[in-house]
Amino acid sequence: MTARVRPSRPRQPEEPVRQENLRTLNLELVFRHILAAGRPISRTELASVTGLTRPTITRIAEELLAGKLITEAGLSHNGRAGRPRVGLTLSEKGPAGLGLDIRADGLAACVVDLTGTVRHLAFTPATYSGWGAPDVLAQLARMARAAIDATAAEDLTVLTATLAVPGPVQAGIVQSAPELGWRDVDAQALLRDALHPLDLPITVDNEANLAALGELYASDNTLDSFVYVSGGLGIGAGIVLDGQLMRGARGWSGELGHVTVYPDGDACPCGSRGCLQAYASLSAVLGDEPAPAGITPDAAATGRAEAGHPATIAALEAAGTALGIALADMLNILDIDTVLLGGSFSLLASWLTANARAEIDRRVLTAAWAPITLRPALLGPDAAVIGAALTSIDQIRRHPTTWLARRQSQVTSA
Amino acid sequence: MTARVRPSRPRQPEEPVRQENLRTLNLELVFRHILAAGRPISRTELASVTGLTRPTITRIAEELLAGKLITEAGLSHNGRAGRPRVGLTLSEKGPAGLGLDIRADGLAACVVDLTGTVRHLAFTPATYSGWGAPDVLAQLARMARAAIDATAAEDLTVLTATLAVPGPVQAGIVQSAPELGWRDVDAQALLRDALHPLDLPITVDNEANLAALGELYASDNTLDSFVYVSGGLGIGAGIVLDGQLMRGARGWSGELGHVTVYPDGDACPCGSRGCLQAYASLSAVLGDEPAPAGITPDAAATGRAEAGHPATIAALEAAGTALGIALADMLNILDIDTVLLGGSFSLLASWLTANARAEIDRRVLTAAWAPITLRPALLGPDAAVIGAALTSIDQIRRHPTTWLARRQSQVTSA
Repeated sequence: MTARVRPSRPRQPEEPVRQENLRTLNLELVFRHILAAGRPISRTELASVTGLTRPTITRIAEELLAGKLITEAGLSHNGRAGRPRVGLTLSEKGPAGLGLDIRADGLAACVVDLTGTVRHLAFTPATYSGWGAPDVLAQLARMARAAIDATAAEDLTVLTATLAVPGPVQAGIVQSAPELGWRDVDAQALLRDALHPLDLPITVDNEANLAALGELYASDNTLDSFVYVSGGLGIGAGIVLDGQLMRGARGWSGELGHVTVYPDGDACPCGSRGCLQAYASLSAVLGDEPAPAGITPDAAATGRAEAGHPATIAALEAAGTALGIALADMLNILDIDTVLLGGSFSLLASWLTANARAEIDRRVLTAAWAPITLRPALLGPDAAVIGAALTSIDQIRRHPTTWLARRQSQVTSA
Repeated sequence: MTARVRPSRPRQPEEPVRQENLRTLNLELVFRHILAAGRPISRTELASVTGLTRPTITRIAEELLAGKLITEAGLSHNGRAGRPRVGLTLSEKGPAGLGLDIRADGLAACVVDLTGTVRHLAFTPATYSGWGAPDVLAQLARMARAAIDATAAEDLTVLTATLAVPGPVQAGIVQSAPELGWRDVDAQALLRDALHPLDLPITVDNEANLAALGELYASDNTLDSFVYVSGGLGIGAGIVLDGQLMRGARGWSGELGHVTVYPDGDACPCGSRGCLQAYASLSAVLGDEPAPAGITPDAAATGRAEAGHPATIAALEAAGTALGIALADMLNILDIDTVLLGGSFSLLASWLTANARAEIDRRVLTAAWAPITLRPALLGPDAAVIGAALTSIDQIRRHPTTWLARRQSQVTSA
């Protein structure tokens, strides 16, 4: 036999484990255990769960306390006599993460602390009429400064920012956001310029992805794998599998709006026919009567549905059927059993869900023995901005030594 | 602000890094570098790329040589004078992996060595007519023994086995394999019993998943993210993203056969309507004239297509259109730009591809700026059995210390 199939090669042969990074790895290990505990945990318990020695734990705890990553807190009383015991828990002062979101109906900013608590949440309505991308990002930068100042007064230090945008992103550039009239907009550079001289690492990501992460965190790990569907003028999806966002090969996964529902159906601006977008976007729901000036499409659609407007109800039912067909395809491909309806779909869920569920139950192969959950998202329209702030703080959570090193270099250079 | 979003918690707080497992980690690191080199590599170069000391490299090399995981080989001459230099490379004797496959047209067995070379490949035609699951697995066990004996004569030791089956699997149990008439068959237990007293760890997996892994290995990492589509009596897909198989929440991902193509279309045995399966399975292609006795459906369909049989050509064109619509949905959801046609689709590709490509180019949102590759799979009908054998050997590649420990315990107990 001569057929030769080459072995799989590791993409990046890793660094060896040596004494220097042993120190970093063990600090991060202890921090992860404090994070995972979700309550004050004693140094003794930390030594026991990590297998590290008590002196090592003491040294690491000092380092984390000095960096304001953790704080001391009383342990719950264990009923025995003796002096009150002290545990370690995440700090509510110190590092914080900033989230920013360009929503269809306005701009939002959010700050969360290390414990994941939302400490600041602001929203400014905007229609963007006559605004170029620099105007949008200048206004967002003003909201970012206000958020940073307000939380600095509570001893929080914003370390990183994450911006949510309604479209696919690559390397900080928004490739297409039809709701804003954007094409190939370097949102990262524009926001950095608008924030100058403040120097904050900025990440730009798709709003459906960030909203999915927001829902993941908000569920306190009761959700593991799910699809977050974002309704609006466009339709997107964020896919979470085994607690991880599935971004696809280039970060463009979840283009649910362009899944084919009716192959010979209505034309879609993308050039195809019968895309979900043509049946379930807010434009499709509003039909021949777009939202009047000063009223958002969301509010117009909800108002008409609540008033029992027959054409709107019929359009919503057709949208629910189309959404169910497209979602069934997605669930058959991904093997995921939970769908969260977000964005305008969360507001319109009462009129969409019955038809969507009927199609899903009929079309998902495994639905018979693993029922599909279909429900509105928890965080409503704030999911993306909270998800963005949590993504920012998660960078500190994952790599606390980076924050400690930056703090150290500031001390050194001062 | 009181809204509280709990932080993400690590699922399994890991073990600390201590001296004992430092030894294991460094051995595996050195082994990965030898694996990644793809050519003999000197001890000096290993010390340099790993950052480990020369005595550590020497000790680890002794251990790997004793365990027959590596062997010494001459380095290519560097043009300088001096004694010939010796490098380390993967052993072609020692550990081996076994793959087994239950194909629509028969049974296959394959053995690969650590270098990924196919050392044994056998196929036995079978129609399974009148065979129960124990009969199928008893016949496979005979082929497994023959493969193990034949390769033992070449100093290879088969350490693990992987079985490919045409259906979804959970914990060794085949949930449904309509081509075999199986439902909830414990293939793992039946194969273990049939192999008794030989005690081999056995993994059972879906054939589309294993074929996708076979293609991944065979591509020598030129493929990174792709979809492998397996045509036949059923239609399945294996999804590889960033070099990893995407199995879904329960291992049931890739149910492409039940993606809806025409919502009000033909009834499917699954209870839905308009599934891809109803248009592109071999049964759909053969239509009112199933394959005659003694001829496989594959051969019947290919024969008629080559003879220009008009109904078959028309059926294949319709199948191509349906396949393109379903694949476009999959690519929009996953953000993947390469599709490999496997199983009967690889034989019928000439008649399917034009229509499939037309639908994909029209319906995949990103196709305009990131063209989609659609081509037959490389390994043809052997993809799954080779992928199964490579999956077996990959367990040794990933955790060489497990093999070393087992070898040690055999020495000790002898």
